[in-house]
Amino acid sequence: MTKKKFNAAILIIGNEILSGRTQDKNTSTISKWLNSLGIKVSEVLIIPDVEEKIISSVNSFRKNYDYVFTSGGIGPTHDDITAVSISKAFNLKYDFHTEAYSILENYYKPGEFTEGRQKMAKMPTTAKLILNPTSGAPGFYIENVFCLPGVPSILESMIGGLNNVLVGGEPILNITISLRTVESEIAKSITEIQNKNKEVEIGSYPFFKAGKLGVSIVLRSSNKEKLEQCNSEIIEFVKSKSIELVSDI
Amino acid sequence: MTKKKFNAAILIIGNEILSGRTQDKNTSTISKWLNSLGIKVSEVLIIPDVEEKIISSVNSFRKNYDYVFTSGGIGPTHDDITAVSISKAFNLKYDFHTEAYSILENYYKPGEFTEGRQKMAKMPTTAKLILNPTSGAPGFYIENVFCLPGVPSILESMIGGLNNVLVGGEPILNITISLRTVESEIAKSITEIQNKNKEVEIGSYPFFKAGKLGVSIVLRSSNKEKLEQCNSEIIEFVKSKSIELVSDI
Repeated sequence: MTKKKFNAAILIIGNEILSGRTQDKNTSTISKWLNSLGIKVSEVLIIPDVEEKIISSVNSFRKNYDYVFTSGGIGPTHDDITAVSISKAFNLKYDFHTEAYSILENYYKPGEFTEGRQKMAKMPTTAKLILNPTSGAPGFYIENVFCLPGVPSILESMIGGLNNVLVGGEPILNITISLRTVESEIAKSITEIQNKNKEVEIGSYPFFKAGKLGVSIVLRSSNKEKLEQCNSEIIEFVKSKSIELVSDI
Repeated sequence: MTKKKFNAAILIIGNEILSGRTQDKNTSTISKWLNSLGIKVSEVLIIPDVEEKIISSVNSFRKNYDYVFTSGGIGPTHDDITAVSISKAFNLKYDFHTEAYSILENYYKPGEFTEGRQKMAKMPTTAKLILNPTSGAPGFYIENVFCLPGVPSILESMIGGLNNVLVGGEPILNITISLRTVESEIAKSITEIQNKNKEVEIGSYPFFKAGKLGVSIVLRSSNKEKLEQCNSEIIEFVKSKSIELVSDI
C-alpha cells in the first residue's frame, strides 16, 4: 500500500522580491520545515502586491495542493493587501478579528494601539490565528491556506506553532555525498542508479570551493531503507572509480 | 503618449530550490539587470525538474510576457532536462547544435570532450546561443525564451551578453529612504502620497539593525521627474514629523 504523499505550494507576495531588492529566504525556511513534517513543496510562485493576482493564485493553489503558504503583505501599510485579498478569494468578510484585535490591544502600551496598528487585526473574521511570539501581530489561516509575514525572522518564529495543525506523511530524509569530480564524469552512472532507484530523488549540483570544483549528489526520499540502499550503490560506484569524497563543504 | 512597458517572467527550474537545500540567488540578479534595461519582472515561478511542468510553464509564460528567462537544468546530468523540454515546448528538433558542439569541442582538451559533456551541446538545433565566458557550455534562446544555467556565478557572467539582444524601455530607477520609525506611524501618510503619485510604486519594508527598528521606503519608477517629485513629498512629510533619517543600512 502506498502511503499518501502530502504536497504544498508557496506564494511569496511582494514587489521587493521581484525588483531584486530583497532575496527571498522564506522558501528555504518553509521547505525545510515542511520536509521534517513529511510535506513536499512542489511549486513556489512570486507575485507582486496586486489583488487580482493574489486572489487567482491562491484560488488555483488551494485546489491543487494539500497546503498553501503565503508570505508577505500582512503588515500595516498601503502595500499590505494579503489579508483583504484572501478574504475575497474565500468570499469571507474582511473586518476586525476579535481575538487578533485583543492580542494586539494587549501587546501595545495604552495609547500606542493606533489606527495603523489596528489594521493588522483586520482579516477574514472567521480565520484561525497563527501566533507571533516576536512582534505581536498574528498570521492566520483559512482551510488549507496559511498566511505568514514576509520578514524572515518573524516568519521563522511563527511556523513551529503550526506543527500540530498540519497533517503530513513520513519525514523527507536526505543524504548528501560530495565528490571531487565534475558532473560529466559521473552523469552516466548516476543516471543508471537513478533508473534503478525510482523512490529516491537524486540531484546533482556542481560546487566551487577554495578554487576547486566538485559535485554534491543529493538523495531525497521518505523511505529510509531505499534511501540507504541508493546511498550504498553510489558509494560503491564512487569507490570503484577511485573518486575522492569531500567532507567539508 | 505612454511609452511601451516591457515585462518578463522568470522560471527557476530545480528540485534543490524547492527542497530548501539551496537559496535562489538568480531572481535577484536577473531582476536587477532587467531593471537597468527597462524591463520589469512580473512573476517568478519555481518548479521541479519535471518535463510536463517545464513545458506548460514556458508555454504559458511566453504568451503572457515580453521575455521569459529560465534558470537551471542545462548541465550534463540526468536531472538536466531543460533543453529537451524547451525543444518540446516549441515543437523543435532536439539534437546536437552545430555551433555549441564546436564551442565545447574547442573548450575541452583533446580526449576530454566526453559523452557526458557532449550532452551540453544538445538543444533545439535552431536555437541562438548565449555565450558562457566562465565554463564553456553556452545557454540558448528561442524567440523570447532565454535559457540560462542555475549556478549563480556562471549565470551572472553570461547575462551581459544579452544586453544588445533585449529591447527594453526606460530604465527602472529607485530611491530608498530609510527612517527610524515603525510602519504603523507612517502608514496613513505614505498611503496618501502613493494615491497622489500613481506613476511611482512605493514599497514599505521594516528592518531590524543593531537592535533597532526602522522602515525603508522604496520608490520605483521609470519616470525620473515623478520619482524625484514623490521623493520630495516624502522628505517633506518626514521633516514635518521630525522622523530621523537613517543613512547606514
